[in-house]
Amino acid sequence: MKKEKIWQGRIQSDPDSLAEKFTASISTDINLYMQDLTGTAAYAIGLESIGIINGDEKKKILSGLKKIRENIEKEKICPGKYEDVHSLVEYELCALAGDAAGKVHTGRSRNDQIVTDELLFIKESAAEAISFIISLLDAILKKAGSCAGLVMPAYTHMQKAQPVLVSHYLLSYYEKFSRNCKKLIQVFEDSDWLPLGAAACAGSGYGLNTNLLAELLKFKRTGKNSMDIVSSRDYLIDYIYCCTMIMLNLGRFCEDLIIYSSQEFSCADICEKFCTGSSIMPQKKNPDILELIRGKSAVVAGSLTQIITLVKGLPSTYNSDMQEDKKILFNAKKETLDSIEIFIRVLEHTEFKAFSIEDKMPEGYMEATDAADYLVKKGQSFRSAHHIIGKIVRYCIKNNMKLSDIPVKKLKEYSPYFESDFYASISLKSCINSKITSCGTSEKSVMNNISKNTKELDKLKKTLNNLYSRIPDFDELTGN
Amino acid sequence: MKKEKIWQGRIQSDPDSLAEKFTASISTDINLYMQDLTGTAAYAIGLESIGIINGDEKKKILSGLKKIRENIEKEKICPGKYEDVHSLVEYELCALAGDAAGKVHTGRSRNDQIVTDELLFIKESAAEAISFIISLLDAILKKAGSCAGLVMPAYTHMQKAQPVLVSHYLLSYYEKFSRNCKKLIQVFEDSDWLPLGAAACAGSGYGLNTNLLAELLKFKRTGKNSMDIVSSRDYLIDYIYCCTMIMLNLGRFCEDLIIYSSQEFSCADICEKFCTGSSIMPQKKNPDILELIRGKSAVVAGSLTQIITLVKGLPSTYNSDMQEDKKILFNAKKETLDSIEIFIRVLEHTEFKAFSIEDKMPEGYMEATDAADYLVKKGQSFRSAHHIIGKIVRYCIKNNMKLSDIPVKKLKEYSPYFESDFYASISLKSCINSKITSCGTSEKSVMNNISKNTKELDKLKKTLNNLYSRIPDFDELTGN
Amino acid sequence: MKKEKIWQGRIQSDPDSLAEKFTASISTDINLYMQDLTGTAAYAIGLESIGIINGDEKKKILSGLKKIRENIEKEKICPGKYEDVHSLVEYELCALAGDAAGKVHTGRSRNDQIVTDELLFIKESAAEAISFIISLLDAILKKAGSCAGLVMPAYTHMQKAQPVLVSHYLLSYYEKFSRNCKKLIQVFEDSDWLPLGAAACAGSGYGLNTNLLAELLKFKRTGKNSMDIVSSRDYLIDYIYCCTMIMLNLGRFCEDLIIYSSQEFSCADICEKFCTGSSIMPQKKNPDILELIRGKSAVVAGSLTQIITLVKGLPSTYNSDMQEDKKILFNAKKETLDSIEIFIRVLEHTEFKAFSIEDKMPEGYMEATDAADYLVKKGQSFRSAHHIIGKIVRYCIKNNMKLSDIPVKKLKEYSPYFESDFYASISLKSCINSKITSCGTSEKSVMNNISKNTKELDKLKKTLNNLYSRIPDFDELTGN
Amino acid sequence: MKKEKIWQGRIQSDPDSLAEKFTASISTDINLYMQDLTGTAAYAIGLESIGIINGDEKKKILSGLKKIRENIEKEKICPGKYEDVHSLVEYELCALAGDAAGKVHTGRSRNDQIVTDELLFIKESAAEAISFIISLLDAILKKAGSCAGLVMPAYTHMQKAQPVLVSHYLLSYYEKFSRNCKKLIQVFEDSDWLPLGAAACAGSGYGLNTNLLAELLKFKRTGKNSMDIVSSRDYLIDYIYCCTMIMLNLGRFCEDLIIYSSQEFSCADICEKFCTGSSIMPQKKNPDILELIRGKSAVVAGSLTQIITLVKGLPSTYNSDMQEDKKILFNAKKETLDSIEIFIRVLEHTEFKAFSIEDKMPEGYMEATDAADYLVKKGQSFRSAHHIIGKIVRYCIKNNMKLSDIPVKKLKEYSPYFESDFYASISLKSCINSKITSCGTSEKSVMNNISKNTKELDKLKKTLNNLYSRIPDFDELTGN
Repeated sequence: MKKEKIWQGRIQSDPDSLAEKFTASISTDINLYMQDLTGTAAYAIGLESIGIINGDEKKKILSGLKKIRENIEKEKICPGKYEDVHSLVEYELCALAGDAAGKVHTGRSRNDQIVTDELLFIKESAAEAISFIISLLDAILKKAGSCAGLVMPAYTHMQKAQPVLVSHYLLSYYEKFSRNCKKLIQVFEDSDWLPLGAAACAGSGYGLNTNLLAELLKFKRTGKNSMDIVSSRDYLIDYIYCCTMIMLNLGRFCEDLIIYSSQEFSCADICEKFCTGSSIMPQKKNPDILELIRGKSAVVAGSLTQIITLVKGLPSTYNSDMQEDKKILFNAKKETLDSIEIFIRVLEHTEFKAFSIEDKMPEGYMEATDAADYLVKKGQSFRSAHHIIGKIVRYCIKNNMKLSDIPVKKLKEYSPYFESDFYASISLKSCINSKITSCGTSEKSVMNNISKNTKELDKLKKTLNNLYSRIPDFDELTGN
Repeated sequence: MKKEKIWQGRIQSDPDSLAEKFTASISTDINLYMQDLTGTAAYAIGLESIGIINGDEKKKILSGLKKIRENIEKEKICPGKYEDVHSLVEYELCALAGDAAGKVHTGRSRNDQIVTDELLFIKESAAEAISFIISLLDAILKKAGSCAGLVMPAYTHMQKAQPVLVSHYLLSYYEKFSRNCKKLIQVFEDSDWLPLGAAACAGSGYGLNTNLLAELLKFKRTGKNSMDIVSSRDYLIDYIYCCTMIMLNLGRFCEDLIIYSSQEFSCADICEKFCTGSSIMPQKKNPDILELIRGKSAVVAGSLTQIITLVKGLPSTYNSDMQEDKKILFNAKKETLDSIEIFIRVLEHTEFKAFSIEDKMPEGYMEATDAADYLVKKGQSFRSAHHIIGKIVRYCIKNNMKLSDIPVKKLKEYSPYFESDFYASISLKSCINSKITSCGTSEKSVMNNISKNTKELDKLKKTLNNLYSRIPDFDELTGN
Repeated sequence: MKKEKIWQGRIQSDPDSLAEKFTASISTDINLYMQDLTGTAAYAIGLESIGIINGDEKKKILSGLKKIRENIEKEKICPGKYEDVHSLVEYELCALAGDAAGKVHTGRSRNDQIVTDELLFIKESAAEAISFIISLLDAILKKAGSCAGLVMPAYTHMQKAQPVLVSHYLLSYYEKFSRNCKKLIQVFEDSDWLPLGAAACAGSGYGLNTNLLAELLKFKRTGKNSMDIVSSRDYLIDYIYCCTMIMLNLGRFCEDLIIYSSQEFSCADICEKFCTGSSIMPQKKNPDILELIRGKSAVVAGSLTQIITLVKGLPSTYNSDMQEDKKILFNAKKETLDSIEIFIRVLEHTEFKAFSIEDKMPEGYMEATDAADYLVKKGQSFRSAHHIIGKIVRYCIKNNMKLSDIPVKKLKEYSPYFESDFYASISLKSCINSKITSCGTSEKSVMNNISKNTKELDKLKKTLNNLYSRIPDFDELTGN
Repeated sequence: MKKEKIWQGRIQSDPDSLAEKFTASISTDINLYMQDLTGTAAYAIGLESIGIINGDEKKKILSGLKKIRENIEKEKICPGKYEDVHSLVEYELCALAGDAAGKVHTGRSRNDQIVTDELLFIKESAAEAISFIISLLDAILKKAGSCAGLVMPAYTHMQKAQPVLVSHYLLSYYEKFSRNCKKLIQVFEDSDWLPLGAAACAGSGYGLNTNLLAELLKFKRTGKNSMDIVSSRDYLIDYIYCCTMIMLNLGRFCEDLIIYSSQEFSCADICEKFCTGSSIMPQKKNPDILELIRGKSAVVAGSLTQIITLVKGLPSTYNSDMQEDKKILFNAKKETLDSIEIFIRVLEHTEFKAFSIEDKMPEGYMEATDAADYLVKKGQSFRSAHHIIGKIVRYCIKNNMKLSDIPVKKLKEYSPYFESDFYASISLKSCINSKITSCGTSEKSVMNNISKNTKELDKLKKTLNNLYSRIPDFDELTGN
C-alpha cells in the first residue's frame, strides 16, 4: 500500500506496514464498489443542488465515477493499494476529476457512507434472495403437482405416524419458505431509508437536501437520528437472521431427503448426477449435496452468532469492530443463495417412490388413528377408542398380524362398535381422504392449497418486480 | 408421578421412574395453563358445533375447565404428578366432567395443541413486550425533553468526536427501541393463525370448523399445512430474536452509561439507590444493574443460539427435541422484560451533567470538523480543509493550545480563507446548531424529532390497545 | 429483602426495592453454600494463624459456620432476604459468633471469595461428571461385551457402507467419552489453585499465609496475579466446554439410535419402559428420551455461547456481568449429568438385532470394498479394482442381483483375476475379519480393544478416587 | 472441472456442473497440500513394507510427490480442475508415476486421509500458535519490566478501585495467555495419533503396519477405533476453542487499552503509527487496531458456534457436512494469529503514563481500603472499619475533600483508633507495597513474578522446540 491516507493531516507518521495491512478492509469492501459509486454519484448531484459544487464539477465527477467503474471492471485498478473502497473512489476520482474530487466528501463521513453502501447492498440482496426463494417455491409447487396421488408415510419422532400425500409433505416446505420470503420483504422495507446527512455522528454541517438524495437513491424515507444511523447494524443482522432461518428450513428438508434416500427408507431417489461416490467403497452413491447444505445451515447460523457477538456491549456510534460486519454478511448471503440454487436442482432430480398400504403401511400400523376415529364416529369417546386400538396394535404385533387381518368377531371383544365397514375405513385412500380440514392431507385440501399457493406465488413475483424498481441504477443516475 | 399415561393402551409397561422424570415437561409448561385451558374451551365449543359432543357435555367441560383454573390458582392441584400441562387438563377434567372429558382430544393431538398454546402465549408476550418498550420510549422521550440545551461529547472509537445535545444522544436509543417495537408487532401478526386441525401431522379426521375455532381464539387466519404446523417453531425463534435485538440495544445503552458514569468521564451520575457498594472497598459506588443487563444481553443472545441449534438438522414434523423450546422462550422473555423494567428506573434516576466548551471540549478538539466546514464555506475543498485543520490540531497539541487560541495571523499561514469570524463558527452553540439536517443535533432538529416521536408513540399506544383486543379471554369464552 | 447491605457506610440510601431484587443473586448462588462455608472456615483458621483473630474467635466462627450449615439444611434460614450467599454467611455468623464475624472479611473481598467458591465447585463437579462418564463407559463396555458376534451395517453419508460388529460400533463411543473424561480431569487440574489473597483486585493488605490456606482447602498451588484472579472465568468456561463436548457426542449417539430404532432400519429395539406413546396415534412408540437428549445437546451448546458472549469485550477485573456465570454453569452441569444418567439406562435397555448377509447386506452391496480388495490381493491396482467393482455393482443393480450371484465366467469379463475363491472372500465373516488393523472391526481387534479399555477404565476409577481425596471436607476442617 | 472422478465406476453419469462446483472443496483444502503429500509419502513407504508396492514403485511415487509439490508451488498445477486435494494428488501422481499411482489408495479412504491431513495441520498450527503466544508473553514481560514503579488505577465495575503497578496490570494478562499456551500444548498432544488404517469406517483390509506409519509421520500412538476415527472432529473443535479463548483474552486487553487511551482516562498512549484518522473529523486519532481485534474476538467465537452446530446431531462416521470444517478452522486460525501478531506491535508502541496520588487518586478515594486496613491493624473489626471509612468518604465527597485532608481530631469522631500515622498508611507507596501476598501488587511480589515468569517462558520455549521436532518433514520422508 503506497497511497497517502485521507486523514494524514493530523497523523503524520506513515502507518506501520503491518498495521496498514491489518486495518485495510479493501479486499472485502471492494464488493461494494457499485454501491459506493452510486451513492457518490447521487451525493455529487446533491452537492450541486445546494451550491457546494458547480455544474461543471458535477459533470466531471459523474463522468469520473463512470470511468472508475469501467476501470474496476476491466481490472485496470489495483484495489489492494487503498485502505477501503471509499478511499479508492476518492483517490481515483482525484486523478480523473481534479479538485472537484476533493469536494465529494463535504458533509459526508465514511461512517454514513458505509451505511449507505450497506443499505443499498441489503436492498439488492434481499431482492436477490427473494428471487431465489421464488424459484424454490416454484420448484416445490411443480414437484407437488407432479406427485399427485403418490402416498408416503409421515413420521413423528422418526417413527411411522400416518400416511400422507407426497404433495402434502412437499407443500409443508412451501409454507416455510413462503414465510421466509415475507421476512425478506420486511428486511427490504426496513432498509429503505437514507443514512446520508448523518456524517460522522452529529449530523452534517451543510444544508444537504436529504429528500433529494433519498429520491435519487430511491430510498423511501430519510434516517431520523445521526448517532443512531452510524451506530446501528440492525438491518444487517436482520438480513443474516433471514439467511439463517432459510438455511434452517433448507437443512431440515435435506435431513428428510437424506433419510428418505437411505436404502432402508427408500422413498426418495436422487439422480446420480447429483450424488457422489466413495474413494474406497465402489458401491456408494452419497447424497453429498444435501449433507453439505445441512452443514452450511450450521455455518450460516454461526455467522448470526458472529454478528450478534460483534455488536454485544459496543458503546454508541461507530467503532471499528463493525468493519468485520461485511465479511460475515457476504459469506452468509453467498452460502445461502448457493445452497438454494443447487437444492432446487436436486429437488427437480429427485423421484419420490410409490408406497402402498398392502406392503409397507402395516409395519407401522399407520392406520391406527383412523381406526380410533372409526370408533369415535360410532360413538366411543376418543380417549377410550385410543386405548382400545392401542391394545389391538399390541395384539397384532404379538401375533404378527395387520389390523385388517383381524376378523370382526375378534374385534368385537375389544369394542362392540366394530362392524364390517371398519376395513374400508382404514384403507389407504380413506386414511388420506378423511383428513378434510383445510390444512389436512386429503386430496381435495392439497389440490386446493396448490392452487392457492400458485396464486400467492404470482403475487410474490409482482412484489419482486416492484422491489427491483426501487433499487437505484448507476447508469440512470450518471446520465447514460 | 402416579397417573397412568394417556397412551398406555399400546405401551403397557409402567415407564421407568427415571425416564418418567426426565421426559416430564410439566415443571416448565405449567406456565401455559391459561393458554391450554383457553384452547381447550374453544375446542370444546368447536366439537359441539360439529356434533362430537352435545350441549350438556360442552357445559360440563367448560365449567370443569373453570374449576381447573381455580384449582391451579388456589394451588389445589399438584402439577408434579402429570407428564405435561395437556395431561393435567385432560385428567383433571375427567374427575370433573366424567366421560365428556375423554372426548376433548377428538381430532386433536398434543402436537397441534402445544402450537396453539405457544401461539397464544407469543401473542400475549409480544403485546407485553411492546408495552414495556413503550414505557421505555416514554422514559427516553421524557429524559430527552428534560435535558434540553445540555451538551455532551459524542464519541466515535471511544475518542471525542463532536459535541451533541444530550437529548440527541438519548433520541438515538429511541430510534433503536422503536425499531424493536415494530419487529414485535410483526411477530404478533406472524403468530396470528390457528394450528388446530393439524392433529398429529396429517390433519384431523373430523370435519372441524376451523373458522369458528379461529374466531373463538381470535386468530386472524387458519394454518395452511398440517405437517408444517406441527413441525415449525419459526414464530418462537422470531420472538427470541426480538428479545435478543432488544437486549443488544439495551446492553449498548448500559455500556455507554457505565463509561459515562466513570469518574474519568463524569458525564452521567446514577442515583445511589440504583448502585451497589463493595464488600471490601469502602469508597465504591458501582453501576451494578447496568453491568447485569449487559451480561443478560449475552445470556439472551446465547438463548437464540440454543433455539437455533435445537432445530438445526431436525427431520420433519414433531420431534421431542422441541420440548426444550419452552424453557428457552420463557427465560429469554423474563430476562428481557426484567431488564427493560429496571433500566427504565435507572434511566429516570440518572442525571446528565453539563459540559462546556471552555473546559472540556478543547481536550478533544471536537470543533475541528466545524473548523474545516468553515473553510469549505469560504471556498476551500473539503479534503484540503480537512488536511489543513489536521495540521493545525497537531500544532495545538504540540503547543498545548486550543484552536481558538490561535490568532488569525497565524491561521492565515495555513489558509488564506481564515478570518476573524472563524472563532464564532467554532463556538459550542455554533457546532451544535450548524447540524441542521433533519437527523442532526441542532436544537431545531432535535425538538422536531421529539415532537415527531411523541406523536408516533401515541400511535404505538393505540396499536397496542388493538393488539390486546385480539387476545382471547378465557372468562368470555367460558361464559363468565 | 430487609437486611442492611454490607456496604451501606458509603451508600446510605436504601436501595430501590426493584433494584434490590434485580441485583440479588441469592436464588442462584445459594447452591454454593457448602463451598462458601468451607472457604470461610479455612479463612478463619488462616486469620488465626496470622493473629487477626484469636483462638477463641476462631472457635466461635467455626461452630457458627457449622450451625449455619445445619440451619440451611433444616431450612431454618430464609436465604431470600440476603443479597448473596456471602452476605448470608456473614450476617448469620454475626448472630452466632458476635464481633468475631465482623473479622472474617479481613483482607478478603467477595471478588476472590466467589472465585474460591467456584473453583471448589468446579473441582467437585468435574469429579462428579467423571464418575458419570465412568458409568457410561462401563455400560458401553458391558453392552459391547454382550453383543459379541452380532453384525450391523456401518453407514457413511447415511448410506450402507460396510458390515461391522455391533461391539465395534459401540466401542467407537467408548473412545469419544474416554476423551471427554480426560478433558474433565484436565479441568480439575486447571482449577486446582487458591484465589484467596487477591482480595478486590490489588491483593490483600495483610500477611495472609496463602500456603496454609491452599493446604486447608486442598488446592495444589496459589494464584499468581490478583488482577487476573478476580477477572478471569477460564476454568468455568472450560467446564461448560467439556459439558458441550460430552453432549455433542451423546446427541450423536442418540441420533444413531433414533434412526436405528425406526421401523425402516430396525436394528435397535428400545425397551418400551423408556419410550413414550402418542396422545392421538394409538400405535406409536417414540424414542422420546433420545430426542430430548439430542435437544439438550443444543441447549448446552448454546450455554457455551452464553458464557463466551458474556465475557467478550469485558474490561479487566470484576464486572457484575459475571454474576450471570453461575446460572449458566449450574444449568449446563445439570442437563449434562441428567442426560448421561438416563442415557445409560436407555442403552442398557436397548437390544441390537442380528443382521445377516443373506437378507440385508446385498441391498447395500456392503461387501464391495472387500471385492475390490480381493482383486488387489490378486494383483490389480486398487484404483482399477475400485472401478471394476463399481461397474459390477451397476450391473447387479440393473439386473437385481447380488454380487455373489454372478458366475466366475461373467466376472472374468470384468477382470481376469476373478477365481472361485472370490465368493468366500466376500462372505460376511470374511468382510468382518479381514479388518485386522488394530482399529478395525475384526473380532480379534475388537476383543483386544475391549480388554484394553477394561484396563484403562480401571485406571480411570483409581484416578477418580484420587481426585475425590483432593476435595476439602467441611466437617474435617471444622473439627468434626 | 474436467477430470473424471475417482468413483466413476459406479456412477456413470457426468456430474451436473453446478453440483460439481458446489461439492468441490479444492479451493479450501488445497491449503492442506503439504500434509496430503506428506501423508501419502509415508503411506507409500508403508505399502512397500507390506509388499503392496515394490521398491521401484515406491521410488516413483516419492519422486512423483516431490514433483507435485514443486508444481504446486511454482503454480504449474491448476487445482481448480480437481474435486479435492486428495484427487489432485492421486491424478497428478498418475501422470508422473504411472500405474503405481493407482495403488496409493490401497486400504486407505479419503475418510482417514482427511483426518490424517487435519491432524498434521493441527499439530503444526498448535506449534505455530504457541510460538505466537510466546512472543506475546515476551512482549508483556518486557513491557512490565520497562514500567517498573509506574502506578495506575485498577478498576472494578469501571470504577476506580485501588492503585496498582502498571507492571502488575500487565502481568495479569501474562497469566491468561500462559494458560492459553498450556491449552494449546494439550491440543498438540491430543492430536498426536495416527488415523490411517481406519479406511472408510470399518478398518483396512490389508495388514498395514500402523506402527511404522505412526513413526514415519511422527505420531505418538495409533487410533483405536476406525468408526470413531472417521467420525470425530474433537481435535479440530479443541483447536478452535483455544483460538476463541485466546481471542477473548486479547479482546478484553484491547477493551482496556481502548478505554485507557481515551482522552478522559489518558493512562495509555498508542503511537500514532498504530492509529488511524477520520475521513471527516480532522482531529481524530483512533485505536482502530484494538477495535478490530475486539471485533475479531466475536468472529472467532462465532466460528466456534459454527463448528459445534455443524456436528450437532450428526449420525455416526463420515457425513459431508464435515467438509465445511476446514474453512472454519483456517479462518479461526488466521484471525487469531494475525491478531496476536499485530497486538504485540501495538503493545510495544503503547506508553503508559505516570499517575500520582496527589492529583488523580483522591477523585476515586482509592486509598479507602488501606484506610480500613489501618483501622483493622489498630484493632477494629474489618466490617466496622469498612463502615467507618465509607462514612468518611461520604463526608469527603460532600465537602470536596481528600481523605488526607481531614485532621486527626475530626477522624477520631469516627473512630478512636485514628492516629497521626494514618496519613503515611494511605500514601500511594504504602497502598502499593502493603499488598504483600504473592499475587499482590507490592513491588516485591511483582518483581518476584516477573522473574518466575521469565523462567517459565524459557521452559515454554524449550517445550516448543520439542513440539517442532515432532512434526514430520516431507523432505526427510522423501529422501532429500
